[in-house]
Amino acid sequence: MRFDLKLYVNEKRKLIEDFINHYFNPAINPSILHDSVLYSLTAGGKRLRPILCIAAYEACRGKENIVPYATALEFIHTYSLIHDDLPAMDNDDLRRGKPTNHKVFGEAIAILAGDGLLTEAFSALSNTSYANVSPKTLLKVISEVSNAAGLRGMVAGQALDLISEGKEPDRETVEFIHFQKTAALIRASVKAGALLAETTEERVSCLEKYGESIGLAFQIVDDILDIEGTTEEMGKPKGSDLERGKMTYPRVFGIEESRKKAKELVERAIELLSIFDEKAEPLREIARYIIKRTS
Amino acid sequence: MRFDLKLYVNEKRKLIEDFINHYFNPAINPSILHDSVLYSLTAGGKRLRPILCIAAYEACRGKENIVPYATALEFIHTYSLIHDDLPAMDNDDLRRGKPTNHKVFGEAIAILAGDGLLTEAFSALSNTSYANVSPKTLLKVISEVSNAAGLRGMVAGQALDLISEGKEPDRETVEFIHFQKTAALIRASVKAGALLAETTEERVSCLEKYGESIGLAFQIVDDILDIEGTTEEMGKPKGSDLERGKMTYPRVFGIEESRKKAKELVERAIELLSIFDEKAEPLREIARYIIKRTS
Repeated sequence: MRFDLKLYVNEKRKLIEDFINHYFNPAINPSILHDSVLYSLTAGGKRLRPILCIAAYEACRGKENIVPYATALEFIHTYSLIHDDLPAMDNDDLRRGKPTNHKVFGEAIAILAGDGLLTEAFSALSNTSYANVSPKTLLKVISEVSNAAGLRGMVAGQALDLISEGKEPDRETVEFIHFQKTAALIRASVKAGALLAETTEERVSCLEKYGESIGLAFQIVDDILDIEGTTEEMGKPKGSDLERGKMTYPRVFGIEESRKKAKELVERAIELLSIFDEKAEPLREIARYIIKRTS
Repeated sequence: MRFDLKLYVNEKRKLIEDFINHYFNPAINPSILHDSVLYSLTAGGKRLRPILCIAAYEACRGKENIVPYATALEFIHTYSLIHDDLPAMDNDDLRRGKPTNHKVFGEAIAILAGDGLLTEAFSALSNTSYANVSPKTLLKVISEVSNAAGLRGMVAGQALDLISEGKEPDRETVEFIHFQKTAALIRASVKAGALLAETTEERVSCLEKYGESIGLAFQIVDDILDIEGTTEEMGKPKGSDLERGKMTYPRVFGIEESRKKAKELVERAIELLSIFDEKAEPLREIARYIIKRTS
């Protein structure tokens, strides 16, 4: 029987969403802050980062329920979307087909909801009661995730993305932005799963490189979809990157070359999993899924 | 010889500022992000939170250099100031007598500098190479700090503060705001020092309560200074809380009652240190200093 990615993703998504509901019960006070946080957390995201974390953990045959730690990655991803959409940043009115957080709750609450989600990620990752994982391992995960998300990671990528708008695109800049803004957190999500499983260094290293490859592929595909996708697929008007003069992969390399690059990255990612058995099938299928979005 | 608080504070401040310089070398890329972060981190803050952390650690006779962990608290405090000053929040043009971060670097970079500083705090706290502190202890510190700063702590306090502007002040609301917005992180700073020293539960508990008391006193004094202080003392125009209809302690209880309350809190804080020897003298003097600002 062939592995069914859709079934797998739906099952994990349910666990992640159950944990989100558990985490925010009792509700946050004031209630507008609670509503703002939950609005973005339950806006229909793919849960790619926590699912990658769980899939990497399972590929290493980990036995604990590490969903709470995986969900912390979704907190960070969601915070980054809320802040990226702000008027001072990308000034987006729509996200996944719904009004963006600040459109519904106002800028102040949106900023605070993002700040709070980022902070809660580290609260969840430092909670030793969720699973039987050693403090040393949890610290490694926190270190990995905070470095990926911080001033030499995602935040740097977003800053360079913003200040590069309208400039002549060049290879070095677009690669820095893709790597820091998108790939770093995806890589850290996969690596976090491997670290939580307390597996061998070799396996951690292969999974880390797998994460980096699919992270870069994911962003290239996103760039392609901004040009070729429909508004329905994107949840926001297509061409918005182009309109803003964003530093995208297709602008530097063209659509065909971008498609080829994404395909190569996904192939390499799957190769990197060769030392893993059938427990890594979800990771292989996720890699294939990324490229399918654009073919 | 009497303990000299000024000397003590200057000595610690130097260590904290040396660590800040060390931490941001090599520089962050892009450079505007680096400059924005350093601008606010070196804008002449009192360094109250990291100094409290170090002083609590020393009161428990800890022997390691925990300045890097203490400085993480300054990262969090600085992020909160940058975000609080944003146009969508308190919309302040001046902070410590200088233009606020977004006035110099623009809103987008100010938001990202705050996000990055918050994230880096957890990177620093999860770095086991800084001192010989057990992973279990560092996790406890991360848990404490993230809970104090998160959606049930500082962020909640700031949200309630904002949505309460212009409303009729009431005791319950002003106490929630003071506690969450200011006291929670100050309490966590002191408790972090005690946890890092791996001292007895009794000592941790006394220091935690000490931190809460001086944290509340500190905010009440701030409210009083907004009415009675000079622009020079405050680094921003006085009366700005009043003008905005902020929920302050004096508005609920009057100036005299507020002054009395702050004094009581400081006395209680010093009492809580009775089980400590002369190594707690810095903590006692810091408590006395807080009340001196308004007498």
